[in-house]
Amino acid sequence: MKVVAVIMAGGRGERFWPKSRSNMPKQFLSLTSDGKTMIQHTVNRIKSLIALEDIFVVTAVSYRELVKEQLPEIPVENILLEPVAKNTAPCIGLAAAYIKEKYEDAIMIVLPSDHLIKYNELFVDTLKDAIKVAEEANNMVTIGIMPSYPETGYGYIHFGSRKENTQGNVYEVVNFVEKPQLELAKEYLALGKYLWNSGMFVWKVSTILNQFEEFLPKMFIGLQEISKALKIGDMDEVENQFRMFDAESIDYGIMEKAKDIYTLPGNFGWDDVGNWLAIERINKTNEDNSVVKGNVITIDSKDMIIEGGEKLIATVGINNTIVVDTGDALLICSKDKTQDVKKVIENLKICNRREYL
Amino acid sequence: MKVVAVIMAGGRGERFWPKSRSNMPKQFLSLTSDGKTMIQHTVNRIKSLIALEDIFVVTAVSYRELVKEQLPEIPVENILLEPVAKNTAPCIGLAAAYIKEKYEDAIMIVLPSDHLIKYNELFVDTLKDAIKVAEEANNMVTIGIMPSYPETGYGYIHFGSRKENTQGNVYEVVNFVEKPQLELAKEYLALGKYLWNSGMFVWKVSTILNQFEEFLPKMFIGLQEISKALKIGDMDEVENQFRMFDAESIDYGIMEKAKDIYTLPGNFGWDDVGNWLAIERINKTNEDNSVVKGNVITIDSKDMIIEGGEKLIATVGINNTIVVDTGDALLICSKDKTQDVKKVIENLKICNRREYL
Repeated sequence: MKVVAVIMAGGRGERFWPKSRSNMPKQFLSLTSDGKTMIQHTVNRIKSLIALEDIFVVTAVSYRELVKEQLPEIPVENILLEPVAKNTAPCIGLAAAYIKEKYEDAIMIVLPSDHLIKYNELFVDTLKDAIKVAEEANNMVTIGIMPSYPETGYGYIHFGSRKENTQGNVYEVVNFVEKPQLELAKEYLALGKYLWNSGMFVWKVSTILNQFEEFLPKMFIGLQEISKALKIGDMDEVENQFRMFDAESIDYGIMEKAKDIYTLPGNFGWDDVGNWLAIERINKTNEDNSVVKGNVITIDSKDMIIEGGEKLIATVGINNTIVVDTGDALLICSKDKTQDVKKVIENLKICNRREYL
Repeated sequence: MKVVAVIMAGGRGERFWPKSRSNMPKQFLSLTSDGKTMIQHTVNRIKSLIALEDIFVVTAVSYRELVKEQLPEIPVENILLEPVAKNTAPCIGLAAAYIKEKYEDAIMIVLPSDHLIKYNELFVDTLKDAIKVAEEANNMVTIGIMPSYPETGYGYIHFGSRKENTQGNVYEVVNFVEKPQLELAKEYLALGKYLWNSGMFVWKVSTILNQFEEFLPKMFIGLQEISKALKIGDMDEVENQFRMFDAESIDYGIMEKAKDIYTLPGNFGWDDVGNWLAIERINKTNEDNSVVKGNVITIDSKDMIIEGGEKLIATVGINNTIVVDTGDALLICSKDKTQDVKKVIENLKICNRREYL
């Protein structure tokens, strides 16, 4: 069966402020030393598996030009537009409707656009195993990540028995669970039966549309209308239907309720690059245990993350601090307060200083 | 006797980097909330005592336009130019030669251009007392400052007996001593007989020229040549002679060797604004005990000194830190490391990055 990929690239990623902005969110930034952006990495790592004309990108209308610019090899008709942000269920439903229209049915790999993976070959092998599981029946497959600490910012996948006679490591999913409190997260780790939910899925288009019909029937009707509109090229109607969708995540809307889900514990150096601290995980540190980019002089400064540009940045006697300088905004944040960057964003929103968002 | 003031404004003030630059040093910066620059404050506080046409400014050729711009009320012919920086003795000698040419003799008040004084009236009263002492004989008068802590960055004045039958607080100077080590500075404070040397002097032009003749005879000959050249308006010769001077401080060249020196212990809220820490002494702190200027959002940040401009500066969980943002350079410095800002300057000099100096 034809295999296609759907890259979700509509996120507004506020945790990388001030470099990530509403007009230039994280998936379009280069946070690695190779100069490639997150979405470019996402496409590159599946190129060996999926033909370029079978890679679809779902993004906001306002990011269309960014996608065209950064992914010139992707056919423009594969850039699917969300007129408004409605979370992952409508995004995936829209893509399913498009792919159904083009190929009737296909295996559909759903990928976030702003994660990093170190071992691409192992990742692709994992996807290949997932494709086989999705192909053999109406199974839904999710790629889990072996937790390395009790993260409270991710959902978890409770897995059960191993799937017999199957290539790779494939396990039945007992259930999806929402982001836990710290104590519960610790318990999940101790139990050895929980994986992080990475937001990467593999299933047939027909399978996922069946799930919409069962668990999100109202949205399914809208998707049918979208299919009709696509047949006659009525893009205004596609947009109208999309606008009427409720905002809903695929996890809450379908995965937490569905059956016949399998998970593959991914083991390929995954990083969701969730905030500025990720920079020191995904880049080499220098002799001061710092990651420094730009025109920087550090005096007596260790364990820094400095993301500058042309402007000279001099630090004197500063440790454990994140410095991010952009043309119009500068962030200086203690490494143990990265979660409070959102307070800056809140402040900017309250004061309606949209130019900085 | 005519009283004139000589404001020394040739300094390159590196300790306020990156705001202070070789093309815009500290004396031309506004570091107070009233928007007035240091040199404007210097002129304003003596206006009641000295006519504007009797205020002279000695500065570098490259600062001439800055002086004209910031002190439009000072006659341009009162801006005396040092073709090269030669420390304070040549600077004061040059001014003495000019004033001698204009007035034959006069009381000459020598003032740095980059200090702040809180109680201007008390300061002017002190100068008035000093003028009387300088007028009555060939006395040299220096304004001392009551030390508030064992500073090792200033020279000290060892004072002796009180001068009898004299208005104000006037003491004989036993000797000038150079910048002490910390232990010695502590001893000076304990002894109660030492004042800080503020670099403010009052003397007759004839008196200081006599001192040049005695202690810096080679420089004195040069000053005589300058006088001759001034008479015929040969400014090239003035410049030539100045270039030949040895670099020498007035403290080391004359004050440490001379007799008949008196000091007045100044008590008028003096601050030499020696480094960025001064900003919190001379400005009001906010509810976070911070001094903040510019477009700033602070989250969970206390005891900060932030000197910004239009660019948004957001600090999150940062304390006791100095942040100075300018168009092309940003300094982030721990408050207890302000002395190491000079290491940044050294680094820039070694790498010949003159654009940042």
